[in-house]
Amino acid sequence: MQNTQKPTTAPVHKYRPYHEQLRVELPDRTWPDQRITHAPRWCAVDLRDGNQALIDPMSPERKRIMFDLLVSMGYKEIEVGFPSASQTDFDFVRHLIEEDVIPEDVTIQVLTQAREELIARTFESLRGAKQAIVHLYNSTSVLQREVVFRTDKQGIVDIALQGARWCKQYEATIPETTVYYEYSPESYTGTELEFALDVCNRVMEVFVPTPERKVILNLPATVEMATPNVYADSIEWMSRHLNHRENVILSLHPHNDRGTAIAAAELGYMAGADRIEGCLFGNGERTGNVDLVALGVNLLTQGIDPQIDFSDIDQVKRTAEYCNQLPVHERSPWAGDLVFTAFSGSHQDAIKKGFEAMDARAAAQGVTVDDIEWAVPYLPIDPKDLGRSYEAVIRVNSQSGKGGVAYLLKSDHALDLPRKLQIEFSGVVQSKTDAEGGEVTSDQIWDIFRDEYLPSPVADERWGRFELLSTRTSSDMSGDVELSVTLRDGDTNEAASGRGNGPVAAFVDILRQRGFDVTVYDYVEHALSAGGDAQAAAYVELQVDGQRLWGVGIDGDISTASLKAIVSGVNRAIRTRRGADALAGV
Amino acid sequence: MQNTQKPTTAPVHKYRPYHEQLRVELPDRTWPDQRITHAPRWCAVDLRDGNQALIDPMSPERKRIMFDLLVSMGYKEIEVGFPSASQTDFDFVRHLIEEDVIPEDVTIQVLTQAREELIARTFESLRGAKQAIVHLYNSTSVLQREVVFRTDKQGIVDIALQGARWCKQYEATIPETTVYYEYSPESYTGTELEFALDVCNRVMEVFVPTPERKVILNLPATVEMATPNVYADSIEWMSRHLNHRENVILSLHPHNDRGTAIAAAELGYMAGADRIEGCLFGNGERTGNVDLVALGVNLLTQGIDPQIDFSDIDQVKRTAEYCNQLPVHERSPWAGDLVFTAFSGSHQDAIKKGFEAMDARAAAQGVTVDDIEWAVPYLPIDPKDLGRSYEAVIRVNSQSGKGGVAYLLKSDHALDLPRKLQIEFSGVVQSKTDAEGGEVTSDQIWDIFRDEYLPSPVADERWGRFELLSTRTSSDMSGDVELSVTLRDGDTNEAASGRGNGPVAAFVDILRQRGFDVTVYDYVEHALSAGGDAQAAAYVELQVDGQRLWGVGIDGDISTASLKAIVSGVNRAIRTRRGADALAGV
Repeated sequence: MQNTQKPTTAPVHKYRPYHEQLRVELPDRTWPDQRITHAPRWCAVDLRDGNQALIDPMSPERKRIMFDLLVSMGYKEIEVGFPSASQTDFDFVRHLIEEDVIPEDVTIQVLTQAREELIARTFESLRGAKQAIVHLYNSTSVLQREVVFRTDKQGIVDIALQGARWCKQYEATIPETTVYYEYSPESYTGTELEFALDVCNRVMEVFVPTPERKVILNLPATVEMATPNVYADSIEWMSRHLNHRENVILSLHPHNDRGTAIAAAELGYMAGADRIEGCLFGNGERTGNVDLVALGVNLLTQGIDPQIDFSDIDQVKRTAEYCNQLPVHERSPWAGDLVFTAFSGSHQDAIKKGFEAMDARAAAQGVTVDDIEWAVPYLPIDPKDLGRSYEAVIRVNSQSGKGGVAYLLKSDHALDLPRKLQIEFSGVVQSKTDAEGGEVTSDQIWDIFRDEYLPSPVADERWGRFELLSTRTSSDMSGDVELSVTLRDGDTNEAASGRGNGPVAAFVDILRQRGFDVTVYDYVEHALSAGGDAQAAAYVELQVDGQRLWGVGIDGDISTASLKAIVSGVNRAIRTRRGADALAGV
Repeated sequence: MQNTQKPTTAPVHKYRPYHEQLRVELPDRTWPDQRITHAPRWCAVDLRDGNQALIDPMSPERKRIMFDLLVSMGYKEIEVGFPSASQTDFDFVRHLIEEDVIPEDVTIQVLTQAREELIARTFESLRGAKQAIVHLYNSTSVLQREVVFRTDKQGIVDIALQGARWCKQYEATIPETTVYYEYSPESYTGTELEFALDVCNRVMEVFVPTPERKVILNLPATVEMATPNVYADSIEWMSRHLNHRENVILSLHPHNDRGTAIAAAELGYMAGADRIEGCLFGNGERTGNVDLVALGVNLLTQGIDPQIDFSDIDQVKRTAEYCNQLPVHERSPWAGDLVFTAFSGSHQDAIKKGFEAMDARAAAQGVTVDDIEWAVPYLPIDPKDLGRSYEAVIRVNSQSGKGGVAYLLKSDHALDLPRKLQIEFSGVVQSKTDAEGGEVTSDQIWDIFRDEYLPSPVADERWGRFELLSTRTSSDMSGDVELSVTLRDGDTNEAASGRGNGPVAAFVDILRQRGFDVTVYDYVEHALSAGGDAQAAAYVELQVDGQRLWGVGIDGDISTASLKAIVSGVNRAIRTRRGADALAGV
């Protein structure tokens, strides 16, 4: 079959492919054969990169709530602001230090440009902190050199080195604080690799890191400019070529312009990085920073402890939404409202079977489902491990099949419908939802089910032609049963009796006396809960005057439940026939 | 510095890493060295996979709007529904065919399971179509074999082969339609590669594709289970091992559970695929399908025509939001509201300089900016090429620096502030926004600017101690100028005159007579628009009694504008001094 796609009028001539702008070549790359085995060092930059990208930047109160959230989740390195650029940020750093709210094992990080007055102000903001990371950056890319700084490579190196020297100088003004350094060649992805390497190596000569006091070299995809494998190649190249790699914590800071920041972080980490900077749910400039929640839970699905607590992901989401005043999207990985929702019938059916298989496997091993390997189709993680509930898993709409309907009736009403009844009933649901559209709630399904199969719960409201008012069974143990019933037939109550090898057969006999040809094809009954006074649900598949259909009965008496199920089926057959007759103009 | 991250209580024991579940090994992979050079065949599945995942599935009217949108954008293969599973879908396929709304070069695609009654119904839905793709699928994964189908590999192969045979059989019932086939081993990422290969090769033996009538083999990441390089490895492996590769259109269908679907699609395409199925803005089950908008625009940024029209991306977004009744997130690649928004001062400054450099380069070459290579920091694409405007690019909040402020004054008021004035004024803006928080609109910036530097626009409302009411200059061409002015000083209007080498110096003389020690340090003036009757803006940097600050004047007369700028500066100095005196209790 021919490809009929047509050229567009898009000005493709304006754009030059990344590989024509910058050379990243690593034919002997090793990262595609690596596997992630442990969590990276995380650094949460929500209070800086995230905050600076908000329509409504965080108030001091919202900043504090975000800080406390990050701490409670287990982040140990937290970039808290750009104190020399904003009085609000400066005051917030002072607040954290003066109110003594930074735990012993948490290190705050502050960003600064390589200008003396800013560096002085940065160190001033840190006075009294036990430890801190001073994050120095300057832009190194070809484009920024040309249009922003209008300087050559040497000029850029000078800015970085001078900045590093000022840092060392002002470090002496806060001797009570242990200062660590992070250096970012900003717009790294727009920088020639050799030059980025040179700047980093030169800056290290000023900071003089040791294995005990490493320097963090952060290589930001300030703008994501190529497929994520290219970023990974560049990281592996840098990791191989940096001087004294043993003194370096190699850090990633991917932005999401092309929508591949999570991949860039993962592949870059496989390529030799040690640390990842990002924001909860991918907040940050433009398309955002890499999403720390996705990265962390991705690890958990591979049996790796993220060293971050995601056990109440809804609370994390609500807090981030409050602080950022931006929503987390319905489809945001692991946290979005719809992520553990399957609408499709085949998905719902498979999920239901997956849960059942888990239960059976656990029971067979004599353990709980939490002790065995998670394996449910379409659910890469147990929602419970993120504090989300199974109830949210399955929702039903007009596209859903029997699986979702059956799941909801089982989980909310303890009704375990036989498979053929599931099919019949999902057709009933679909006929209603096709017409009306929209999601169908569990309550609506229950209403549809009751309206279709069960007597009205409203006293004195009549449902169907027949209603069972009383029963009396006598058996002489000969194998034959005599059944006496009071039956409402239309508006009149009548006594009737019949015989058969059990109450069901006897009741069929009673119906036959009234002119109905009823055959029972299938019969299933189960208790609705534990205990002697439990209700039972009976399901019967009948043929009534040539028409195949199901009836359902619920009663405390298992025998009565089955008779009610037959009444249900016969009433439905009469109703259907009336509808057909009406259509035929009879 | 020590890593203080702690283990969590997450039940990591429940999860087995992907590579322990399934083996995907390809040490001689070639895809990391590939580069994308042309658009793949696209298939939009918004009306099927997207629609089935909606809280409120599309009504027939919304379905039609989505179909027309996809057609207008240039998609040539459109999966329009699962007609055998839903009456709504069946009716929609009939609508498209009977109303003759499918363009000649567009092929609709319909999904079906491998069951005879569904296949029969599927072909029934297609009657009268010129051409169609029948998309047959069955689930092949280890997990689904075990818990859903409870069958072995042979059982799964039988389902697929029987389905394919039924397709061929029912194809004969619609001879007027050219039928193409797509086969998906659903849950491919959970399937052993060798088995997926075997099923695909066996199905092809039934469909008997040729180079002219290829079969589409679609390898879905039904659930995204590993880093995207693993998916790419698997695609390259399949591409190498498929029988009669020349008769195959190899198709990808990545879901986004781990947040790496875009990467999986791109790397998988580099690994040898021909075709990508996805949805606009990543709609679809759970976290969604791969985002077709991101994939397409990513190509454009690399100088590759996506063969899809994204020139009015806001319209595409609005339509998709209407049809799906789900928002596109603020940070969704290329389309989100905040994607072309830079709040950070340094970003804004760099963007402004980037635009200026583009203008200068185009002017130097005697062409327009649309003729030269796009190169603006932090903007990987010209927003104009997506129908978005520059006005949306820069927004200002309390975290913003001079760049954004300067940009807005220039673009909205034609004021081109000198750099040092930008710094001064951004401090003024920041002092207001730090206190109040929130975004600052261009109008608010203009109000702040006018309040700080310019006389009140309200008649009779006084701004500052001095106001220039009239001027008269006489020069005898000796190099000296005599300036006579009427000056409001507080509540009284006074005539005054002074001398100097120009009107500015003469006016400084007048002020000196009134006890002000004024020195002019810098002076810039420019027209606000073209034409003889244009207004001019003057900016002067003054030292007034030891205080350095700027004044601004706007007037039709360039000389008067500069005098007004001096008045502006002196008034500001007096105002600042009063504020300081008030604080000192004077």
